[in-house]
Amino acid sequence: MSSFGRLFRVTTFGESHCKGVGAIIDGVPPGLELTEADIQPQLTRRRPGQSKLTTPRDEKDLVVIQSGTERGVTLGTPISVFVPNENVRPQDYSEMSNVPRPGHADYTYQVKYGTRASSGGGRASARETIGRVAAGAIAEKWLAQKFGTEIVSWVSSIGHVEMPMPSLNTTGTNLTREEVDRVGTLRILQLPGQSEADFVASTDLALPAYLDCNGVVYNRQGDALPTPANLTELLTDDLVPVRCPHPPSACAMATVIRECKADADSIGGTVTCVVRNAAVGWGEPCFDKLQAMLAHAMLSIPAVKGFQYGSGFEGTRLRGSAHNDAFCAGKDGRLGVVKNDAGGVLGGISSGADIYFKIAVKAVSTIGQAQETVDFDGQTTVLEAKGRHDPCVLPRVPPLVESMSSLVLADLAMLQLARDHYM
Amino acid sequence: MSSFGRLFRVTTFGESHCKGVGAIIDGVPPGLELTEADIQPQLTRRRPGQSKLTTPRDEKDLVVIQSGTERGVTLGTPISVFVPNENVRPQDYSEMSNVPRPGHADYTYQVKYGTRASSGGGRASARETIGRVAAGAIAEKWLAQKFGTEIVSWVSSIGHVEMPMPSLNTTGTNLTREEVDRVGTLRILQLPGQSEADFVASTDLALPAYLDCNGVVYNRQGDALPTPANLTELLTDDLVPVRCPHPPSACAMATVIRECKADADSIGGTVTCVVRNAAVGWGEPCFDKLQAMLAHAMLSIPAVKGFQYGSGFEGTRLRGSAHNDAFCAGKDGRLGVVKNDAGGVLGGISSGADIYFKIAVKAVSTIGQAQETVDFDGQTTVLEAKGRHDPCVLPRVPPLVESMSSLVLADLAMLQLARDHYM
Amino acid sequence: MSSFGRLFRVTTFGESHCKGVGAIIDGVPPGLELTEADIQPQLTRRRPGQSKLTTPRDEKDLVVIQSGTERGVTLGTPISVFVPNENVRPQDYSEMSNVPRPGHADYTYQVKYGTRASSGGGRASARETIGRVAAGAIAEKWLAQKFGTEIVSWVSSIGHVEMPMPSLNTTGTNLTREEVDRVGTLRILQLPGQSEADFVASTDLALPAYLDCNGVVYNRQGDALPTPANLTELLTDDLVPVRCPHPPSACAMATVIRECKADADSIGGTVTCVVRNAAVGWGEPCFDKLQAMLAHAMLSIPAVKGFQYGSGFEGTRLRGSAHNDAFCAGKDGRLGVVKNDAGGVLGGISSGADIYFKIAVKAVSTIGQAQETVDFDGQTTVLEAKGRHDPCVLPRVPPLVESMSSLVLADLAMLQLARDHYM
Amino acid sequence: MSSFGRLFRVTTFGESHCKGVGAIIDGVPPGLELTEADIQPQLTRRRPGQSKLTTPRDEKDLVVIQSGTERGVTLGTPISVFVPNENVRPQDYSEMSNVPRPGHADYTYQVKYGTRASSGGGRASARETIGRVAAGAIAEKWLAQKFGTEIVSWVSSIGHVEMPMPSLNTTGTNLTREEVDRVGTLRILQLPGQSEADFVASTDLALPAYLDCNGVVYNRQGDALPTPANLTELLTDDLVPVRCPHPPSACAMATVIRECKADADSIGGTVTCVVRNAAVGWGEPCFDKLQAMLAHAMLSIPAVKGFQYGSGFEGTRLRGSAHNDAFCAGKDGRLGVVKNDAGGVLGGISSGADIYFKIAVKAVSTIGQAQETVDFDGQTTVLEAKGRHDPCVLPRVPPLVESMSSLVLADLAMLQLARDHYM
Repeated sequence: MSSFGRLFRVTTFGESHCKGVGAIIDGVPPGLELTEADIQPQLTRRRPGQSKLTTPRDEKDLVVIQSGTERGVTLGTPISVFVPNENVRPQDYSEMSNVPRPGHADYTYQVKYGTRASSGGGRASARETIGRVAAGAIAEKWLAQKFGTEIVSWVSSIGHVEMPMPSLNTTGTNLTREEVDRVGTLRILQLPGQSEADFVASTDLALPAYLDCNGVVYNRQGDALPTPANLTELLTDDLVPVRCPHPPSACAMATVIRECKADADSIGGTVTCVVRNAAVGWGEPCFDKLQAMLAHAMLSIPAVKGFQYGSGFEGTRLRGSAHNDAFCAGKDGRLGVVKNDAGGVLGGISSGADIYFKIAVKAVSTIGQAQETVDFDGQTTVLEAKGRHDPCVLPRVPPLVESMSSLVLADLAMLQLARDHYM
Repeated sequence: MSSFGRLFRVTTFGESHCKGVGAIIDGVPPGLELTEADIQPQLTRRRPGQSKLTTPRDEKDLVVIQSGTERGVTLGTPISVFVPNENVRPQDYSEMSNVPRPGHADYTYQVKYGTRASSGGGRASARETIGRVAAGAIAEKWLAQKFGTEIVSWVSSIGHVEMPMPSLNTTGTNLTREEVDRVGTLRILQLPGQSEADFVASTDLALPAYLDCNGVVYNRQGDALPTPANLTELLTDDLVPVRCPHPPSACAMATVIRECKADADSIGGTVTCVVRNAAVGWGEPCFDKLQAMLAHAMLSIPAVKGFQYGSGFEGTRLRGSAHNDAFCAGKDGRLGVVKNDAGGVLGGISSGADIYFKIAVKAVSTIGQAQETVDFDGQTTVLEAKGRHDPCVLPRVPPLVESMSSLVLADLAMLQLARDHYM
Repeated sequence: MSSFGRLFRVTTFGESHCKGVGAIIDGVPPGLELTEADIQPQLTRRRPGQSKLTTPRDEKDLVVIQSGTERGVTLGTPISVFVPNENVRPQDYSEMSNVPRPGHADYTYQVKYGTRASSGGGRASARETIGRVAAGAIAEKWLAQKFGTEIVSWVSSIGHVEMPMPSLNTTGTNLTREEVDRVGTLRILQLPGQSEADFVASTDLALPAYLDCNGVVYNRQGDALPTPANLTELLTDDLVPVRCPHPPSACAMATVIRECKADADSIGGTVTCVVRNAAVGWGEPCFDKLQAMLAHAMLSIPAVKGFQYGSGFEGTRLRGSAHNDAFCAGKDGRLGVVKNDAGGVLGGISSGADIYFKIAVKAVSTIGQAQETVDFDGQTTVLEAKGRHDPCVLPRVPPLVESMSSLVLADLAMLQLARDHYM
Repeated sequence: MSSFGRLFRVTTFGESHCKGVGAIIDGVPPGLELTEADIQPQLTRRRPGQSKLTTPRDEKDLVVIQSGTERGVTLGTPISVFVPNENVRPQDYSEMSNVPRPGHADYTYQVKYGTRASSGGGRASARETIGRVAAGAIAEKWLAQKFGTEIVSWVSSIGHVEMPMPSLNTTGTNLTREEVDRVGTLRILQLPGQSEADFVASTDLALPAYLDCNGVVYNRQGDALPTPANLTELLTDDLVPVRCPHPPSACAMATVIRECKADADSIGGTVTCVVRNAAVGWGEPCFDKLQAMLAHAMLSIPAVKGFQYGSGFEGTRLRGSAHNDAFCAGKDGRLGVVKNDAGGVLGGISSGADIYFKIAVKAVSTIGQAQETVDFDGQTTVLEAKGRHDPCVLPRVPPLVESMSSLVLADLAMLQLARDHYM
C-alpha cells in the first residue's frame, strides 16, 4: 500500500511520467512553523542532475504545499505536497515496452496488475520517493524542535571503496549534514572542453583531481594537494555530490563512479546513518520494535538490499561477554552505556544512546550496455537502454534515509506520547 | 503494538511468567483442515530444553486451539491458541530487580512504561514468540495447500563458523526441513557419567564426536568416521539441534556452542531462509514491498541485528552489468531468471524465483559470567546471572524465521487475491 | 475483522460453543490498578440467566486475566482475558442445521465462508460480546481515573413503552449506573408455585406487581403501592433487570416482556447513553469523528438497527435558528452551551458538554413460535426453535453500550494525547 | 484521521480556503476504464450554486486526475485527484474570528489543535467532502462493472415534509438516479424581475409554482396543473434540485426551503439510500459489520445526526414474530426473503436483498439571523453572519451518501475477494 505510519502518516502518489508526484502527510502536530523552504533542501539533495556524474535530467522538483498550513504554521490538518513532473521524454523508454528490463519491476508489475505504465518505472521509479522526502523533512523538523533529535547519514562505501567507520559504538559521530555535503561534494578539476592530455600538460595535477567546498584540492586517493596557480581556470561545472565526508574515501569513490560512467555501467554501495538525541522509550514491542520499523522503512527504498544496526552481521561473531553493553551513569539521571554495540536500541526500544545502522544499495539496474535477455513472450532479444541514467545513486540516498528515519521516529514518538505515563 | 499483518493478522499476548502465552489469528481462510497437530511441531522445534547444550528448562509448550475450528476445519473466524506457562521459577530472577541487565530490555521497559515485569524479560522474552510460531504454522499450511509454497531455513553460521552457501542465486536449494533436522541434529558421543579421559580410553574417537540421525559418526570437523564397535554404549541423551544441514559445519558449530557453555558465555550467528514456489505478484508497492515486510518481520524477532536478501551487502560491490539478472523462458508461460542475485524479488514484488535472505542473530545477552555495570540509580555493581539460559539460541531460530516468513507471505498473498485482475 | 481501535485496541475471539471466548486488549496504559474485580461486574450485568424473564442458561462468565498485569497493576503489555464456555448443549441447535434461521446469520455466514459453526450463532452470537465488555471495563476505568469521565446508559423504551426522556440537551442527566440497576431491577411479587388467582386472593395486589431494590412495590403501571403485610411471602426468585430507572416505565416494560415470554415471542426497544466529563478535543476529523466512531461501535453490536446523537432524527425538523446551541461561559475557562442539541459534539470533536445518543435494538430473532421458511435448498419447511432464549435482550444491552463507548473514547483520548499541543 | 477504508482506501486533504482539495485513492483495481468524466457528474451534483435557492457561490469544482491512470485505464497505483479552490473571499469570514460560531467546529478545533484556520470551516467545511465524492465515484464504477451494484439515494424529508416511503422492505425500489434528478429538480415559475402580485395577475398560477424536467407544472402541494399558455415566459433561471423524486413532496419541500431562505434561516431533513445487487457476503464480523461501516461512513458526513437501516427505530416496536424475515427461494440458487425488515443485512453480512438505510441531517448552522452568544473569552456578543450560505444542504447530500456507501462496499467486497473460498 502507499501509506506509511500510524499517527504521523504519509501517503504518496505519482508515477514517473504522470502529471506529478506528491503526498498527503496526516497527523502533523499543529503549531509547527512550516513553509516550502523547510522541505526543498532535502528534495534538492535527492534530485538527479546535480552533476554530470549523475543523470543530466534537469528536474527542478520544486515543491508546493497545497493544504494544512496557514501563515506558515501547521493547522494539524493533512498537509498535501505536490511536485509537478517536468521534462518528460517518454520516447526514451518506448522501445522497452516489449522487453522487461532485467533487474527492474516491469515483469512483476505486468503480472501483478495485468498492466503497467508504458514508460519508466511507474511506481517503482525513484521519483516516487519525492513524496517521502518531503514528508520526512516535516517529521525531522518536528523531532528537532521537540526532542533535539539529529539525523545524519552519509555514503560509507561505493563498490570496494569503504570509508573508515567512525567509532559509532562508543562515542557516536559528531558529523553534521553540512560536513557530509561540504567535504563530500567535489568539483572536478579540468578545463571545460579540454582533453585529459591537454589538461595534464597545463598543470601539475594528474587526473582525476577534485576540489571540495573548503577549497582543498585532492587527487584520486584523496591526498590533499598544493593549490595549483591556475585553479580558477580548472573548474568544470561538474559537482560530484558523493556525500562521503572522508576526503580520501570520497575521492576514491568519485573515481569509481567516473569509471562506471565511462563503461556505461553502474555500481552499488552502502549508506550509514546515525540518530543522536533520540528520547528513551521509542519503539513498540513486539512487532513494531524500533529496529523493525527502521528495517521496514529502509527496505522500502528502491534498490536497498540489506539493513543492519548496531554491531550488525559482524557482531554475530562476538561472544555475549564481549557484545553486552554495560550500563554507566548518564546525563539527566538517565543511564548510558560504556559502548554501544546494541546500536541505541534495547528490546526494540530506544535507550538514549546513538542509534546507528547501515544499508546496502545495489547497483542501478539500468545500464548503457547491451544486455541479452528475453521479451515478455520468452523470445531471446538484446536490450540496450537509451535513457538518461545515473551510474551510481548512492549520493542521492542519504536524504531518503534521513527522511524515512524521521518518519519512523516521529511516528513512534507520537505513539509513546499517547501513553499515560508521562502525563 | 502486538499485531502483525493486515488480512492474515496475528495478535499475541503473554509474558514469561504470567498464566500463559498465546495469540489470536484473524483472517485465516475458512475450510482449511487444522488441528493442534499442525502447530505443535514448530513449537516443539522452537522450545528450549531440547538438549543439554541449550537451556534445561523443560517447557512442554503444548498448544491448545480455543476457537475458530470445528471438527478439525477452520470456520473463517478468529483462531485463539494458548500455551500455559509451566515450571516458572521467578526466584531465579529476583535479585536482578535493582540492576538492569546489560543487553536486555529492563532499562528501556522501565523508562518507557514506568514499570516492568518484576522477573524475566516480560514481553521482550523469547517466550512471546510462541504465539507467532503457532500463527505462522497455520499460515504455512495454507500457503502450502493453495500455492505449493515451501519455506525452509537453517543455521548458516555460528560465531566464525560459516556453512558454505548453496548456490541460492542460481539453482535454489533443494534442502528440506527434514534434512535440516536430520543431519543438523546431532547426538553427543560419550558414555553418560564418564569423564573425557575415560571416554577416550574406551574408544578410538576423540572428543567431541557426534552422531547424526542417519547413523553417521563425525568428529569436530565434521569428517565422517568409521562406526565404533561400542556405538550404542557411547550415546548420551544430549541432542544438539544445530539445524545446520552441512555436517562439517554442524559439527564445528556444535563444538563452538560446547565451548561457550563451558565458559558460561554465549555466541551469535546467522540464519538463512529460502522460499520456493512463491507465486508471482506478492508484495505491495511502495512501502510494503515484499522485502520490506520480510525485514520488518525478521527485525521484530528478539536478538536479530540485520537482514539482507538476494546478493545483500556483498552484492553492493558488483557492477550493474554483473548484478542484473537476465530473464529467460520459464515454466508455465512465466519468465525465469538465469541467475537470481535479486533474491526472487523485483521492485518489491515476488518474481517467481526462489526468495532467499539471511539474518544476523547476536549472542544471547544473559551469560553466567559476572558483569560490571550499574543499577537503576547509576551505582556501580556486579551482576551475576543465576537463571537457566541458552549459550546459543540459533538452533531455535529457524522455526521463528519460517513462521514470520509465512505470516508475511500469507498476508501479501491475500492482499493480491483481493485484486480484481485474476477474477 | 475482529479488532477495534487504533491505540487502545481490542481483538476478540470465540464462538458460542467452542472452548471459550475472550479478547486481547492492547495499548492499555501502564500503571493502572486492575484485577478481575474491575471487569466482572459489567460481565455479570451482561450475562443471561439473571431472571426467569430472560434465558435460564446459567452461564457464570467468570473472567480470568491471563497476562498484562502483575500484582494487580497493568504493565503496558497486552491484557488477555478469557471466559470459558460452560453448560454447552449443542443438541438444542442440532435440528436447525439444514434450515437457516430467519433473522439470523446462518445463511450469510454459510455463503460468505462456505462453512459455518454447526450450532448456535457462531461469531454472530451475543456471546462474542463478552470480550468487548471486558475490554470496555478496562477502558472505562482508565477514563474515569484520568479524566473523571462517567458513562451511564439505560433502557429508554421497550416495544411501545417509552421512558420520558430526561432533559439531556440542557442540563444533562445525573443518573448513575447504580440507580439504573437499583430502581430498574425489579423482583416479581407472587408466591412461588402459586397460581395468579390464588395470589390475588391472598393479597390486595393485582398482578403483575413488582418490588424494586429500594423496597417499593409497584403495579404494572409503576404506581407505588402500599407495602402489603405479607410482602416477604410474596417474593419469587425472579429478578427483572429492566435497567430503566423510571419506575412507571420499568414496570410497564417488565409487563411487556412478560407478555412476550408468554407468547413465545420477543420484543425490541431502545437504549440511551450519556457521557459526562468528556474532555474537549476527542474525535478526529474527518472520517473518524467522535459520532462516526460511536456509530460504528454501536452498529457493531448484534441486533442494533440505528444510532442517533443529540437531537437526532427529531432534530431534522428544527430550523437552524432553533437548533443552534449558543455558547456561554463555562467552568475552568472553557465555554459551555446554553442548551445541547448538538449532543456534546461539534465538528466531530467533543465540546465538553454531555455526549448523549440513542440506539435501536430489534426484537431477538429466535422465538419459540413455529416459522414458515425454506431450507438451504429453497424447500419450504417449518422451523420451531427449542433452545433457550431471551424474550428481550434490552436489559443486557447497557453494559455493552457502555463498554463500546468506553473503547471509542479511550482510543480517541489516546490519539489526542499523541498530539504535541498540550505538552 | 483523514483516511477511510482498508483495501480500497481514500485519504483526503484540503481546507475551504487553501490552494485546493483532493484525495489519494489507493487500492483501485487495475484495468478499470477511468477518466475525469466518470467523476465529474457526482461532483457537479454535490457542488453548491446549483440554484438561487442554494448558495450563489460559483465553484466550478472541475476535477483533475493527477496519477494512477494511463490512456484512460487504471494502473492499480494510487489515483490522485485535485480540485483547485476558486472564488475564495475570506473577508466574508474575517469578523467571525473572535467568536466561535454556534453549531460550528470553531471552538472544538481551537481547543483540540491550539490553532485553527482563520476563515471558513477548515477541515470541518463541506468542501472537504469533494475528495470523498471523487473517490466514491471510482468505487461505484468498479462495483457496477464487477457486480452490477446500483446505489441510489434521495431526499426523503425536509423539515416536517416527509416523502411517502416506497416499500423498500418488500420489493425494493426501482428508483434511478436519473429519476431523482429529473423529477426532483424543479424550475421556479415566475417572470424574472416581476413581483409575486404582478405574476399572479399574469397567469392562473398561484405562487409558488414549479416545473420539473418532464415539462409538468406543479403547485406548492405538488398537484399537477394545466400547462399555462405563457409557460415559456414564466421561467426563471432558478433550479431547485430538491432531489426528491415524488412530485408532491418535492414541491412542498421546495416551498419550505424558500421560506427558510426568506427568513435567513435553515432547515434539516433526511436522506434515504438503497443498494441493489449487492453480492451475498459483504461485511466482516464482528466489529466491521456492513451496517457498522455504513454507519461510520454516514456519521462522518458533516451535519449527519443519525443512521438507521432496515426497520430502524420504528422496527424496535415490532415483535420478533412480525419482524423476522422468512426466507424463500431466490434467483440463481440463492435464497431470498419474503419481506426485508432486516434491510439486506443478516449478522453484519449482506444477504443479497436490497440494502436500505436512512440518515438524519440537521439544519445548517450558519444562518443569516443575528445570534446571541459569547466570544472565545466568554464575553457576550451578537454574531451576524454575512457569508454565502445554503438554507438547506439536503439536495447536495445524496451524492455524498452514494459515494460514502460505494467506498464502504468496494472495501468490503475486496476484503471478501481476499478469502480463499471462491477460488
